[in-house]
Parts: sequence; structure tokens; C-alpha cells
Amino acid sequence: MAHHEQSKATFPEHIRKKRNGEQLSAGEIRDFVQGVKDKTIQESQIGAMLMAIWLKGMVAEETLALTKEMMMSGEVMSWPAEWEGLMVDKHSTGGVGDKISLVLAPALAACGCKVPMISGRGLAHTGGTLDKLESIPGFNVYQSVQQLHRILEEVGCCIVGQTDNLVPADKVMYALRDVTSTVDSLPLITGSIISKKGAESLSALVLDVKFGNAALYKDLGSAKSLAQSMVTVGNSLGIRTGAVLSRMNCPIGRCVGNTLEVMESLECLKGRGPDDILELSIFCGLLLWMIGRAGSLDEGKKVISTTLQNGAALEKFQNMMIGQGVASQIAASLCSTNADYYSILRRAHYQTELETQGHGTVLDIDGMVIAQVLHRLGAGRSKAGDPVNHSVGAELLVSLGQKVEKGQPWLRVHYETPALSAEQRLGLQGALTLGPVDQLHTQPLVAEIILP
Amino acid sequence: MAHHEQSKATFPEHIRKKRNGEQLSAGEIRDFVQGVKDKTIQESQIGAMLMAIWLKGMVAEETLALTKEMMMSGEVMSWPAEWEGLMVDKHSTGGVGDKISLVLAPALAACGCKVPMISGRGLAHTGGTLDKLESIPGFNVYQSVQQLHRILEEVGCCIVGQTDNLVPADKVMYALRDVTSTVDSLPLITGSIISKKGAESLSALVLDVKFGNAALYKDLGSAKSLAQSMVTVGNSLGIRTGAVLSRMNCPIGRCVGNTLEVMESLECLKGRGPDDILELSIFCGLLLWMIGRAGSLDEGKKVISTTLQNGAALEKFQNMMIGQGVASQIAASLCSTNADYYSILRRAHYQTELETQGHGTVLDIDGMVIAQVLHRLGAGRSKAGDPVNHSVGAELLVSLGQKVEKGQPWLRVHYETPALSAEQRLGLQGALTLGPVDQLHTQPLVAEIILP
Repeated sequence: MAHHEQSKATFPEHIRKKRNGEQLSAGEIRDFVQGVKDKTIQESQIGAMLMAIWLKGMVAEETLALTKEMMMSGEVMSWPAEWEGLMVDKHSTGGVGDKISLVLAPALAACGCKVPMISGRGLAHTGGTLDKLESIPGFNVYQSVQQLHRILEEVGCCIVGQTDNLVPADKVMYALRDVTSTVDSLPLITGSIISKKGAESLSALVLDVKFGNAALYKDLGSAKSLAQSMVTVGNSLGIRTGAVLSRMNCPIGRCVGNTLEVMESLECLKGRGPDDILELSIFCGLLLWMIGRAGSLDEGKKVISTTLQNGAALEKFQNMMIGQGVASQIAASLCSTNADYYSILRRAHYQTELETQGHGTVLDIDGMVIAQVLHRLGAGRSKAGDPVNHSVGAELLVSLGQKVEKGQPWLRVHYETPALSAEQRLGLQGALTLGPVDQLHTQPLVAEIILP
Repeated sequence: MAHHEQSKATFPEHIRKKRNGEQLSAGEIRDFVQGVKDKTIQESQIGAMLMAIWLKGMVAEETLALTKEMMMSGEVMSWPAEWEGLMVDKHSTGGVGDKISLVLAPALAACGCKVPMISGRGLAHTGGTLDKLESIPGFNVYQSVQQLHRILEEVGCCIVGQTDNLVPADKVMYALRDVTSTVDSLPLITGSIISKKGAESLSALVLDVKFGNAALYKDLGSAKSLAQSMVTVGNSLGIRTGAVLSRMNCPIGRCVGNTLEVMESLECLKGRGPDDILELSIFCGLLLWMIGRAGSLDEGKKVISTTLQNGAALEKFQNMMIGQGVASQIAASLCSTNADYYSILRRAHYQTELETQGHGTVLDIDGMVIAQVLHRLGAGRSKAGDPVNHSVGAELLVSLGQKVEKGQPWLRVHYETPALSAEQRLGLQGALTLGPVDQLHTQPLVAEIILP
């Protein structure tokens, strides 16, 4: 108490120091994070400090101290000794149609890993893993720590929301970063992401840092800086941390929207997923390699591929659903080979297909444009706490490099109220670029891998 | 209302723009100021915007828009047509022992001006005119607009606190600037000071911008930038605005502390003031010249000097006290030639005199050191709302350039509880610099004048 009383008087001093571009000491960063957590710092002071950090940055030492203090602001999980070396997770900086977590968590569990995946909700154009899972009737993303232990014990993976006790300082800062335009700050992103992973007490972590039109970072260089920052801090916290820099221009897979993405994930788990999703199983390969469960990256990828082909990952997903509250019969139906998904998942009232307005080769599909229209149709939320419409989404009926004729359906939009407007229809048409085949420049999804 | 709903969503956009160093439009600045006033902007957003303004600055156009919008956030006073050209005020950026306003307001009134002086309270080492006046029993600094009109009509001057209706946006911003370390920003200081002067609907304004050890700005250059900014905005608002750049190293006059400064002001009004206070009557000279009541600066100064010598200014002060609630008998006693001040004003329980520790010529008296010790003895406040101890203060018993012997009393400290500690005594001794007379470099108080 005496400590807090004392530091309270010095908050303006800490803010001034960062404002002047000086390095904050570990103790000053502790004052700040504790003040944020126990609300002894005024919100105006948090806003000013966040802006000073955004504009003046932090050196590696400060970022590590920030992350550590955020992690220590709440509960840090502890696991049975026999799980040591098995605790793994993957985190993505967010993309359009990114349902990779839904596929990889059970695939990793099928390989003997323990995956305590703590995920987030969607904001703006970015989808959220929790929102996707909540389109499954009965799926409960809020589990007590006891339940989480039990599911990891029995199944090996679970995908849950952040509990109140986990990194409470981040909850406050995250909400304020959003309204103060201080989201895209390297030290603040690093602190927010890695503090939560630190609190999961992981053995290994793979970060999917996306760049491109539909990502937070538009170019490889800035995405790489973030990846480097997170890898450094993660490893300093004792988590073997690697990162994959992946392109985010076209949507990942064929489906965008919560319910549609769950369906596509189930197809992947049944061995019928699109190529790009399988390409991204590289994350798992990397994890298996990092924890010594595979002799190489390629071997790790093959092991994962096998769990998707032989139904082992699907079985884990089925049991995870049951563990998180879905009725056994519903879980079994969704996982059956020829599942009638719409008998269980809600289908949007309206579907409409957009037709190509010319012919040629599909050169580009702009994921950002599609995400923004779907957002306005109710698939995403504008601010935390807003509801989302799970059934709203879109299915791509063509893929990059495909030759199409004029008038061929290329996108099926699923919508409810509000309806798709003429303007939005026009906007979506702008997302598709056709041209001569020799202008097709496809690049691999994965641009670079950063090892621990 | 619809307008506010709409702009609310764009506050993060405005913050981002300033964060990126872009120029805000007049409409965006209006959104911000109105949002501050009606609390539709979160405090964290105000903190972030203040920090972005501190770090990225504002161009003249933005500063003018900010000042205008702040002024328009509350009541703008209006005066009888016959007062046109007579409404004047003087504002100081704050100094140690600065009781100039107490002398100049009645002197200007004695010259036929109307002086609706809205003053502030002291913070940290800076004294506040309102605190000084409140050491007079019965003096009420809070007057309704109706009362203010009546006193201006009958007396010609009054010194009051800011009413709730006057520039309400500044009240919020001022409090937040203090805790977010964004006080010393050129556009924010300009907005805060000039918006209040604008709301007074003045004809002419003189700014006393101080620089030196005991001022906010340490060097002439930065003080000049602020003066230029305020002069530009003031004139753009239709107020003839000039500025005086004055040195603030030694205390002004002989007394520091609320009660002691009132006593010294009364002595000035009786024609017995110290030279440096009379030197600062230049502000009035400038005002009289700007409104055409004097043919030159020197003539203006002479007119003011006469009002101090012939008792005209003293009579105005006496009537102002009565107008603001002081009993006639008390006002008359204080203004009598050989007033026994301590029969009316509270004297501190304890006085102690410090003696010189060597001999030589007084080369420097550090006003900042004296102010900081007095602050800790209760003469000043650490945060808005704290009480002050009016009787605490100090009297200088020597002046710059004076030859002194060892063991000669040079400072009389007036204190209550807490008592003056040995450490504080030592600190105060450090404020006095003695040396050989050839090292004496006195500079005029006024360094530069900026005309409208």
C-alpha cells in the first residue's frame, strides 16, 4: 500500500520520461502495469502513456519488463510435471478466413501435445476463433481452470476465452489501446500477446505473423520486426518461441464468416481441406520439431498431415466439443463423414451469388474488401461486446489462378438483415481481379520462418 | 445530438491523425473540444490526444481553432456599448512573489479602464492571485456575472475566480494536463490562457511571459515562442494583444507568501513599493497606449505612476475589496496610511531570521529555492483543491547589489506547522549568492516587448 501511495505521485514523472524518449526502468514499468491493474492510475494517464509509448517506442529490455509485469498481473497457470515439454500453442495476429486454430489444436492433441489455447474475439475486419466456435450449439468458451485441466487431461486440447484472472492488466490496456489509436505499437502488441502466452506456462509457441493487404502490417519488414520482438521476449520468458511470416491478401481457404468457417474446418479435419490450409500446417510441424517430437520441420508436417487423414484430429475435435459443452449427438453428427451441417448449424436466410463480369484468370481476390462488406452485414463487430451474426459470411467459388468465363458465379454471399446493398455488391465485385494468365504472380503463403 | 453521435465514432481517427503529425481541421478540433466538454470522449482518449499534441505540436491555424472552440465551450461575456475600447486585462504565466495584478488592476481602473480580471490559484511553486486575496478577511473571489457587472460599473475592476460557465472545456483539460505531463505545450498553454481572455471579451490584453530559473520556461527563446503564439491568437480573436518578456530569477518585490504579498501590494498602492514592482507597471503603460489612452508607452507608465502616488489606485482597491465582500471598516483600515496590517491579517506564529554566512555583494537570490521551501511549509499546494496556509511566507531583508556583512539578517521566514527544518534552513541559505561587486551582472526585468 505504502509502495502504491508513493508511486502514485510519480506517474506523471514516468509519463514525462517516456514522453522525452527515455528508457523506463523495470520498477517504473511495474508501477505502470500495477497502477493499470488496480486502477490507481487515471485513465487519462494510461492514454497519455500509451501514446508516448506508441510515439517513442521501447527498447527490448523495456518490452520484456512490460510483458513480464503484464503476465504477473494475474494468475500464471501451472501444469502436472508429466506434461513438461508438451504444452504448446499457436497464435495468429489475425487474418481473413483464418480458421487454422480450429484445425491445428486437435491435430496437435492427436500428436500427444497439450494445447491450452486461449483465444480472442473478432474486432473490425478480423474474425475471432471464439466467435467461430460459438456458432456450434452448446459450445462454451468460458471454462474454469479446473475444467481446463480436466479437458487437457482427457482430450489434450481446448479453445477458451481469457478468464478474469488471466493478465487483467491487458484487459484494461487492450480496451484503451483500441479507443486511443495506439493498437499498432510493437512493444504494446508484444506485451499483450506474449504476456497471455506466458501465463499459459507453455513449453513452445509458434506465432503466425501476417502481412499484406488484409493484415495489420502491410509489408514484410514491419511484420518481421514484430515477429522478432515477440520471439525475443517469448524465449526470454523461457518459452521456446518461433514465428512464421505469412502472406495475408486473399482469404485463407474458401470460406469467410463464423459458421461457414466451422464447416470448412470440419472438412479439413476430415482430410478434405483446401491446399492453403494444409500449407499452414507448417505451424504444427514447427512446434513438433521444437519440442523434439519430430526430427525435422518436414517430418513434423507429415505427422500432422497423417492426423488429418486418419481421423485422429477429428476425434480430438469431437471430444473437445463434448468437453466444452456440446451434446454428444450433435458433436457426432458434425463429425460424421457426410454430415448435414445445416441440420445443426444455422444457415443465413438469404444467399446470393455474384457472377464474374469478364473472363480470364483469377489474379487476385482482395480479402480485406470481402471482410469489410461482411463486417457491415453483421459478421464482425465494431466494438468489443457487440453481438455478431454467426451465419453471415461468404464462400469463394473460384480460386487463385483458375480460368473463368464471363457470368460464372465466383462468390456466394450469405446474409440476413441488413441485406446486401447494390453498393456493397459493387464493392465486392472490385475484390476480384481477372487478367491474362501471364500476369499471375502467385507467391507461397509462408514468406519466412524465424526459429528460436 | 446526431452530430455528436457521429463524431464519437471518429475520435480514434482524430487521435490517429495528430499522432501521425497531420494537421487537424477546425471541425475535428471542434469535435475534440465539445467531446471534452460534454464528456462524450473518454478520459483515456483525452490523455492520448494531449500527449499527441504535446509531441507533434500544432500549426498556428490549429492553435487558433483550439482556442476559439475552447472559448465557445462556455459563456462569452458581453459588456455595455459604452465600455467598448476600455475592457483590459493582464495575464502572467506565473512567478515567485508576483503580486503585480493586485496593484495594476486598481491602477488601470483609476485610469478609467474596466478590468474584469479572472485569475487562478497557485500550483506547485507558483503563487495564485486568488489565494493572495483570500488572506483578506471577507474577500470573496466568487462573484456572479451580475455582481461582476455591478462592481465593474461602480469601481472599474474586480479580481475573481473562473465561474463554472466560463470555458468549461479548459477546466477538464487543465486538470488532465497536470496528471499526464502535458502542461508545457505551446498550443495547449495558448488555448488555455487565451480562451479565458477571449471569453472576457476584452478590448486589449497584455501578457507577462516570464523566463528564467523560477519560471516555466528557462530561456528567452522558448518564452518568446509562447508569447508569439499567444499574441497571434489573441489578435486573431479581435483582442489587441501585446506581450512583455520578463526575467524571473529573483522574487519580485521583497515578499513571498499570500498575506505578506497583500501587505506589499498595499504598500505599492500607497506609493511606497519597491523599484522592481514599479518597473513592471510597464504592462499598464502598454495597455493604456494600446487602447489609445496614452500617446506613448512612457506616457502610459507616467499616468499609472501618478495613480499610485496620488492615492487614486488605492481608493479603487479599497472599493474593490468592499465590492467583493470585505467590511468597509476593514477595507478602510488596510488602506490607511499607517495601517497596522497584523490587526487584520493573520500573522504566522513563528518568525525566524536567516543570517548571511559571509560578506560581500548580493549577486543572486534564487526565487525557485525560496518558493520550493515555502511550498513545503504550506504556502503553496501540491494539487488542485489542497488548502494553503496564507500566513506562511518570507521577507527579503536585502536586495540585489547590496553590500552585506557576515551575520547580517537577510531573510525573515514566517511559518506555522510544519516548522522550518534544519535541512530547509540549509536549502534557503543556498538561495543567496554573495561575491565581489565586479561579478554583479544585473539585467533589466523586461527583456523584450512584443507589440500587437
